[in-house]
Amino acid sequence: MASIDVPVALLGYGTVGAAVNRLLVESADDIERATGHRLRVVKALVRDIGKERDFAAADGVLTTDFAEIAEDPSIAVVAEVLGGVEPAGTYVSDLLGRGKSVVSANKQLVARRGAELFAAASGAGCQLRFEASVCAAIPVIKVLREALVVTNVHRILGIVNGTTNFILTEMEGGSSYAEALAEAQRRGFAEADPTDDVNGADAAAKMAILATVAFHSRVELADVAREGIEAITEEDIRAAKELDMVVRLVGSANLVDGRLDVRVHPAFVDRHHPLASVEGAFNAVMLQGDAIREITLEGPGAGGIETASAVVADMVSVIGTMGTGFLQNDPCWRTLEKLPPGDLQCPFYLRLHVVDRPGVLAQVAETLARHELSVARIVQHGNGADASLHVVTHEGPSGSMWAALADIASLAGTKERPVALPVISERGVAELQWA
Amino acid sequence: MASIDVPVALLGYGTVGAAVNRLLVESADDIERATGHRLRVVKALVRDIGKERDFAAADGVLTTDFAEIAEDPSIAVVAEVLGGVEPAGTYVSDLLGRGKSVVSANKQLVARRGAELFAAASGAGCQLRFEASVCAAIPVIKVLREALVVTNVHRILGIVNGTTNFILTEMEGGSSYAEALAEAQRRGFAEADPTDDVNGADAAAKMAILATVAFHSRVELADVAREGIEAITEEDIRAAKELDMVVRLVGSANLVDGRLDVRVHPAFVDRHHPLASVEGAFNAVMLQGDAIREITLEGPGAGGIETASAVVADMVSVIGTMGTGFLQNDPCWRTLEKLPPGDLQCPFYLRLHVVDRPGVLAQVAETLARHELSVARIVQHGNGADASLHVVTHEGPSGSMWAALADIASLAGTKERPVALPVISERGVAELQWA
Repeated sequence: MASIDVPVALLGYGTVGAAVNRLLVESADDIERATGHRLRVVKALVRDIGKERDFAAADGVLTTDFAEIAEDPSIAVVAEVLGGVEPAGTYVSDLLGRGKSVVSANKQLVARRGAELFAAASGAGCQLRFEASVCAAIPVIKVLREALVVTNVHRILGIVNGTTNFILTEMEGGSSYAEALAEAQRRGFAEADPTDDVNGADAAAKMAILATVAFHSRVELADVAREGIEAITEEDIRAAKELDMVVRLVGSANLVDGRLDVRVHPAFVDRHHPLASVEGAFNAVMLQGDAIREITLEGPGAGGIETASAVVADMVSVIGTMGTGFLQNDPCWRTLEKLPPGDLQCPFYLRLHVVDRPGVLAQVAETLARHELSVARIVQHGNGADASLHVVTHEGPSGSMWAALADIASLAGTKERPVALPVISERGVAELQWA
Repeated sequence: MASIDVPVALLGYGTVGAAVNRLLVESADDIERATGHRLRVVKALVRDIGKERDFAAADGVLTTDFAEIAEDPSIAVVAEVLGGVEPAGTYVSDLLGRGKSVVSANKQLVARRGAELFAAASGAGCQLRFEASVCAAIPVIKVLREALVVTNVHRILGIVNGTTNFILTEMEGGSSYAEALAEAQRRGFAEADPTDDVNGADAAAKMAILATVAFHSRVELADVAREGIEAITEEDIRAAKELDMVVRLVGSANLVDGRLDVRVHPAFVDRHHPLASVEGAFNAVMLQGDAIREITLEGPGAGGIETASAVVADMVSVIGTMGTGFLQNDPCWRTLEKLPPGDLQCPFYLRLHVVDRPGVLAQVAETLARHELSVARIVQHGNGADASLHVVTHEGPSGSMWAALADIASLAGTKERPVALPVISERGVAELQWA
């Protein structure tokens, strides 16, 4: 088969862009064997042509002029690895409008402007792919769109931020939050300003994209409730361990009776749950659906070469489906209502410090019962005049727990603000049986 | 977009075939939204038209005459869910030769006759897809072929047989091998004759397919060394637990300096390794490669509806790439040598029963040292006049361990045949750092 030459372009030539070029050069033979096409970077948009690069581009490739890419009719595929909503959004929209397929690694762009960009791609008959925008090399978008096309995914649980998972794993090993964060920064897992990681914003953007693709209804960033790990204490970590659980920052997306709930929050995860064994800076996404029960994908969720690998795979998939346009239209074809946040059901972990005197436990139990929350496990530790009480409830509505929490906080025997966190223990496989 | 009607056919209409038809009927709208095509089963080859079915086929669909499918020019895609090498092989070869794309769930067929079938598909310009032949709904073939196209996968570790994993997990809970097998049969995870599961033959066929796809070199069934779980005892399970490991039947495929090693064997797996948390009848496959470090996919590795989900996804992918032919040619383009089996390096667990007297431990240690195997951990339990010795070595060649084992067996103080099993603890991520 004669090889077809495919000129491609990059928007951005930083760590990821240089790695994309390196993979395309080093794997040109692999790609040609798989697709009959040789991909070759002919232009890469940068701000400073003179800057030193991880992997040098060929002479004449780097340019500061977007028009050199947009107006070159030989370029049919462009990878956007700039990051940030602008100018990336304007560029991508322009390219799609001209019928050039775009592969984007940009979660903020896809989460915020997906509807507009898919419309542009659809109008011009080209593709927008975005595997690298969620969990880098873990191919969760391809699996959702192509492998699970007939399985009605109704729940996603994910550890989609490596920085916070690294911090929580370090804390399990005995570090304080501050020490764990410093170590994450030293090893390159956390930025100098880690705000968007630790407050859950990064995870929320990824969950918005995953939920949109899985549930076929646009989930805006503002629709994703989020709570970060800044308030997680060493006591939380210890308490989890005593209950044979671990603390993880979990993204959850649920489709309940045709209504959506997407949130990011710290949770107690049972040791036997696949998400509990995800350690360090790794990510994992569990997809639960009708025909598949559950499939979990785990791997590195960030990193330059990992992200580049996903970008290149998307470019190859564009080439592999050029002209068909199938499977890559806007994933949204319906508009689903949001589930009122208090309606989402789960079990809860509840911790409170109480005065150690008769009747306090009964009051707490009575308050939970009044809100129709039933107790599954309870552990009490005395500590001089005080006691700490660790309670795990059976599944109940979030709203009931919030109301119970407020009532418990106002009990005479309660010493500090009680803490409640969702518990993740159930799998989609409780009654697995194939007979 | 006007919907295109796509008549498809099935070879076989048992549990999986009926489930494929059900998914195609129930998900016709989903598939049409994704691809613009409506897939409709028009013929299904069966032996007995009158037999009762899980999901009834429409009137006139069931047929006992293969020619009705082969000679119908309107049928472009056929799913083979017969199982067994013949007559499935003759049918599939015939269909591919006529230019009809085939999706197969048949691991024996793909493992034994892949080369011939890919040649037929390539000659006629159609596709052979086989996701469901390995681990049912876990999309490991698609991920290897499409998502990891540029990552040079050099190692695969898999739990690819649910029956044995269920038995081993039950044994961890205290059951004997016989009890665990009986429970597996009761729950439909094991056949009345479980031979091919427990002796590793089923896992070996899956590993041959995975290694062939990942390493681009044909791995024949005869090339896969295998050892089953029949000899695993309750003592093995207990010993693993003491060392903070679990026993798993592991398929491993390694590419070492351009040479291949593929085998299936029981192994001690460290608790922190992702394969250790795979419980019950679940499967998992870990792929290690240059750009991705490692990606693990976990899910149900068998089951009628799970297998059907993979078959339908493959049919949809055929439709989605019709006419391009990319990414679906024969995965093999090179012939790699086999690594001599004794050359594969790994750490080992070694157990022996010895007479409890001075000097025996020294003799064992000296024998290991003579074969250049160094000891990482050692646990000794006294038991009256005898002692059992549990040794974990550092990484060393398999051949050295086999030779050491023979020497140790012939020592005067050794009471029964010693047991050695590979240990899986290393991940591809030991020194994970992104700075």
